[in-house]
Amino acid sequence: MRSVTLERDIMMHPAGSCMVSFGNTRVICTATIENDVPPFLKESGKGWLTAEYGMLPGRTGGGRKRRDGIKKDGRSTEIQRLIGRSLRAAVDLTRLGPVTVFIDCDVFQADGGTRTASITGAWVALYDALAKLAEQQGQAGPEYYIKGQVAAVSVGIVNGQVVCDLDYEHDSGACVDMNVVKCGDNLVEVQGTGEQGTFSREELNQLLDAADRGIGEIYRIQRESLGI
Amino acid sequence: MRSVTLERDIMMHPAGSCMVSFGNTRVICTATIENDVPPFLKESGKGWLTAEYGMLPGRTGGGRKRRDGIKKDGRSTEIQRLIGRSLRAAVDLTRLGPVTVFIDCDVFQADGGTRTASITGAWVALYDALAKLAEQQGQAGPEYYIKGQVAAVSVGIVNGQVVCDLDYEHDSGACVDMNVVKCGDNLVEVQGTGEQGTFSREELNQLLDAADRGIGEIYRIQRESLGI
Amino acid sequence: MRSVTLERDIMMHPAGSCMVSFGNTRVICTATIENDVPPFLKESGKGWLTAEYGMLPGRTGGGRKRRDGIKKDGRSTEIQRLIGRSLRAAVDLTRLGPVTVFIDCDVFQADGGTRTASITGAWVALYDALAKLAEQQGQAGPEYYIKGQVAAVSVGIVNGQVVCDLDYEHDSGACVDMNVVKCGDNLVEVQGTGEQGTFSREELNQLLDAADRGIGEIYRIQRESLGI
Amino acid sequence: MRSVTLERDIMMHPAGSCMVSFGNTRVICTATIENDVPPFLKESGKGWLTAEYGMLPGRTGGGRKRRDGIKKDGRSTEIQRLIGRSLRAAVDLTRLGPVTVFIDCDVFQADGGTRTASITGAWVALYDALAKLAEQQGQAGPEYYIKGQVAAVSVGIVNGQVVCDLDYEHDSGACVDMNVVKCGDNLVEVQGTGEQGTFSREELNQLLDAADRGIGEIYRIQRESLGI
Amino acid sequence: MRSVTLERDIMMHPAGSCMVSFGNTRVICTATIENDVPPFLKESGKGWLTAEYGMLPGRTGGGRKRRDGIKKDGRSTEIQRLIGRSLRAAVDLTRLGPVTVFIDCDVFQADGGTRTASITGAWVALYDALAKLAEQQGQAGPEYYIKGQVAAVSVGIVNGQVVCDLDYEHDSGACVDMNVVKCGDNLVEVQGTGEQGTFSREELNQLLDAADRGIGEIYRIQRESLGI
Amino acid sequence: MRSVTLERDIMMHPAGSCMVSFGNTRVICTATIENDVPPFLKESGKGWLTAEYGMLPGRTGGGRKRRDGIKKDGRSTEIQRLIGRSLRAAVDLTRLGPVTVFIDCDVFQADGGTRTASITGAWVALYDALAKLAEQQGQAGPEYYIKGQVAAVSVGIVNGQVVCDLDYEHDSGACVDMNVVKCGDNLVEVQGTGEQGTFSREELNQLLDAADRGIGEIYRIQRESLGI
Repeated sequence: MRSVTLERDIMMHPAGSCMVSFGNTRVICTATIENDVPPFLKESGKGWLTAEYGMLPGRTGGGRKRRDGIKKDGRSTEIQRLIGRSLRAAVDLTRLGPVTVFIDCDVFQADGGTRTASITGAWVALYDALAKLAEQQGQAGPEYYIKGQVAAVSVGIVNGQVVCDLDYEHDSGACVDMNVVKCGDNLVEVQGTGEQGTFSREELNQLLDAADRGIGEIYRIQRESLGI
Repeated sequence: MRSVTLERDIMMHPAGSCMVSFGNTRVICTATIENDVPPFLKESGKGWLTAEYGMLPGRTGGGRKRRDGIKKDGRSTEIQRLIGRSLRAAVDLTRLGPVTVFIDCDVFQADGGTRTASITGAWVALYDALAKLAEQQGQAGPEYYIKGQVAAVSVGIVNGQVVCDLDYEHDSGACVDMNVVKCGDNLVEVQGTGEQGTFSREELNQLLDAADRGIGEIYRIQRESLGI
Repeated sequence: MRSVTLERDIMMHPAGSCMVSFGNTRVICTATIENDVPPFLKESGKGWLTAEYGMLPGRTGGGRKRRDGIKKDGRSTEIQRLIGRSLRAAVDLTRLGPVTVFIDCDVFQADGGTRTASITGAWVALYDALAKLAEQQGQAGPEYYIKGQVAAVSVGIVNGQVVCDLDYEHDSGACVDMNVVKCGDNLVEVQGTGEQGTFSREELNQLLDAADRGIGEIYRIQRESLGI
Repeated sequence: MRSVTLERDIMMHPAGSCMVSFGNTRVICTATIENDVPPFLKESGKGWLTAEYGMLPGRTGGGRKRRDGIKKDGRSTEIQRLIGRSLRAAVDLTRLGPVTVFIDCDVFQADGGTRTASITGAWVALYDALAKLAEQQGQAGPEYYIKGQVAAVSVGIVNGQVVCDLDYEHDSGACVDMNVVKCGDNLVEVQGTGEQGTFSREELNQLLDAADRGIGEIYRIQRESLGI
Repeated sequence: MRSVTLERDIMMHPAGSCMVSFGNTRVICTATIENDVPPFLKESGKGWLTAEYGMLPGRTGGGRKRRDGIKKDGRSTEIQRLIGRSLRAAVDLTRLGPVTVFIDCDVFQADGGTRTASITGAWVALYDALAKLAEQQGQAGPEYYIKGQVAAVSVGIVNGQVVCDLDYEHDSGACVDMNVVKCGDNLVEVQGTGEQGTFSREELNQLLDAADRGIGEIYRIQRESLGI
Repeated sequence: MRSVTLERDIMMHPAGSCMVSFGNTRVICTATIENDVPPFLKESGKGWLTAEYGMLPGRTGGGRKRRDGIKKDGRSTEIQRLIGRSLRAAVDLTRLGPVTVFIDCDVFQADGGTRTASITGAWVALYDALAKLAEQQGQAGPEYYIKGQVAAVSVGIVNGQVVCDLDYEHDSGACVDMNVVKCGDNLVEVQGTGEQGTFSREELNQLLDAADRGIGEIYRIQRESLGI
């Protein structure tokens, strides 16, 4: 697994912000809180959390990438929906009150695993933002809102070997690729895909075992970064 | 599991077409073949398969739905990417030659499971289209191009029970929801999500077992419909 | 004239639905009713009727057609405006109360005359939807809202002969092409166009005579289908 | 009928241009010629003619109108298609050679009948543009390309009376409204619509008679303006 | 400097309108007043002024220009923002009351300097529109709202010479190009750009001197046109 | 003037990159080089330079900002055009050969002066990118392509005082606001605007003097950062 680092409070204005690195993959994650909820939650007393995923044009080798224009491409849309679902699993929306947490993940540098790095960094930014919300709402701390620790890692089978946290080169060569998101000891999302080849139940189990180990280590780094 | 039916050759023009029903969910699936490939495959000799997912405005209760306008919503984009990947797993693209297979899945009536019904029906339309291609290209039959039988089913945990092929009511109440796509005996896609709750490895295994049984039955119905 | 058939109640959810066939041209027509009116009718007490026209990508020979994307093309926009005007002529909007009737016509298979088949089928779906509205509003029956029976047919001059209900081949070869919509004994819309040639008043009269005969026969088939 | 005037050569650059007035309705019409044809005519040797319809934001009373933004509304699209078809009827496309004539009609002031004024003025601009083309191509004059004189007028039934060339007030009160385009003695387009009421064959004939008289007078004014 | 002319009241409906010519550059300027303000001024009691810039497709030589489609290009956006800022400098927004003045500048013919002609003509249309507003609001005259006379001119360095009011040919050959807008004796906007070369402080001063002389002459023509 | 800092080589992939800070305003600037030119320069042998300006959603206080969607707003478009023109003044495009330099400026944190910080940082990224191009093309160094050093600063009149490098608070209170871009000792762009008040020639001269002093200091910091 590549080196995972988290640098908090990189921006002045968002309630929470961090730069997360999984090797050369680096993502700017922010959490901001607004006093409004989407129409379908008006009058419900519940809060909401939503995510957006962007990318800087100089993030990769092989030439500058075009900015998202008239519509996000399918891949970006999938990723931001995944980030949103994963972090909603971490939060007790009924305790938030009528606020919306916006998670923004902007890829600064891309080398595979941007979605799992985003989820991992966004949870740290979310923790800091909820600490500020707790102060405002007179609660003891962010734990009041948080149902569990959330982190994610990619796993895959490359040249017949199970690999954890695939970089771009691994990812391109993987015959099976799976993103695993956990909340505490349980799973939140499992997305395995075998476009270059199919996979058996046994291989699926090996991949899940590797993800368990990887996420355990990432959990530790998140807690260390937050001092909890 | 709900009753699954397949009605072939419902349209004159596409090389393959069928109406697939999973209970009250009904999807019009077509496969058409064009003598062209996307730019990234020019000169490669390989073929391609891509899918689009649409929905008729009168497909559901609770009022007419708006047509997809300026951009497909995130959910539709995810589904059509899933259908495309799943069926590409079934086809040997290097044997197709420089043609593109277009899969179109248009939801006629929606009651949960439209993506799994779409994949299941699209494989039947694809089989018929490849039979025509085989004739044109002087091959023995569609098996020349087909790497395996593909079908899909949704499984979930509803009120603590594992349920196979969730209708809309089940789907709304499920705390875990998983779509499983198989090709032959292996897995192609596993997409499990627990927005209303997380799930353990043991529950994941129970869900996969239920999907195995469901897809086995659907495989039988596909073969019966095709007379193979 | 080609064989005209009408199959009612093909979908569970819309208040009225039918599959209309004019020869190989087949259109899915639905009518749904919502408890709202457009802004310009708020506070007026009147209702509204509007129509949308779509097409399935596998509807024709000569290859798959692209889905309507960022904007409807001019032809589709014209057709849905024509369908809307034609059916509004059939309904007493002041009696509807503050509801909107949405007509959706989705071309399942295209072989000329999709707009006239759409209007013809949509009137049948509308009749069934208004029967349900009558029940809800405590009126005797759909006749309370309906000002007249509406049907449409295309007529044209092909190789010097007047033809009624042109299929695609006729349509391509016609030097004059006219769509006629009637409500009861009167005309609602006459749209004659002579891009490949102009036409005289006498020819116009022959076309209108042919349309009268064709619509008379279609009226009979509509009534038979509805049992009225 | 309102006073019809035509002022030619109002702009320096287009091959033909005129300001046409039907009473207070005023339209800037231009015809420009480019040495290219649309893809479907490449290699055919034939030319093409196409039209666009725009509107200045200060054209009407009742407040400024918004500019056409992301898409032309349905009405504008219908009108520009009508203008294009009507003027294509006037031109022998096989004699043009591989050029495209662009007709632009921009409404300067609107008081009913903008589409019929546009067609009438555009024919004059077209005549002047084809005179220049004839010079370039060494033909005797614009008559080499022109199949007939084209003009248009609206007719309607207002308070039970047949009216020719409806202004905005008439148009709003008309129970039947018909646009008639002629080329020489024949009809090119007849578009009658009875949204506020239906109409009989006899009424249709009265409307066509009125249009014949009106277009006869407009033909005279066009010829006078061109000095032919 | 080219001949500058102003023709007022060219349209019936806008509160003020004029055709402004700077040589062969001609722009249709209108000012309309609506009883509403943008959201950020609601409840403020202040009014607003905004501008839009459009172009007719036949405005230039070198072929027909495409209409602005899905988005205004960067140049048009810049110009309309400049027009708006320049004329807001001329108006006491707190005296207008809760109304919005819409300025529309549509280029009829383009030969360099369309933005400066637009500002110059728009001020005249604005003056006439504010005269009507004064009548409605019971004020003595347009001077009640107007803080100063506004006009604009372009200046540049062409072949080492300072030129005032550049036509298209000058503009293409200028190594420095500057647009100067004045309100009374003061400057409102100075936009100097040296893409084809840089410029010294001394050259800047020479350009500003030339603009002073040019705007002085244009002020005289504006007042003459308005009879003030 | 606020503290100006430049941190180079913050990203792996672009040929040049830096984070520029003007006080709390921070912008990520990158320069990438592609072996292609826009259509209007094909066959010319010349190169091109173009710029894009983006903003991270968490860049300001007062709540999260929405991402640029279907179209860039007018302000962003103006800024990126200004950045592009300013840096083109620094480069000898005829010496580049057929390559395009893409400048991307993404605002990380905004507190006034983002456009002048962008130009200043982009020149440093450009210098580094041209150093790499020089190596590839066998030239002595980046000076081969560079016509001059480019930097920018904003100046304004706040409460009657001339201020250099306005932060957001100053900017909101300025009655005159001017952006000055220099290349060597000369001016490239002067954009002065007085929406909240007009300004005299004398004030203009004071503003330009202040800009001269500020840019002199920024030039020094750029050279120090590059070690030249």
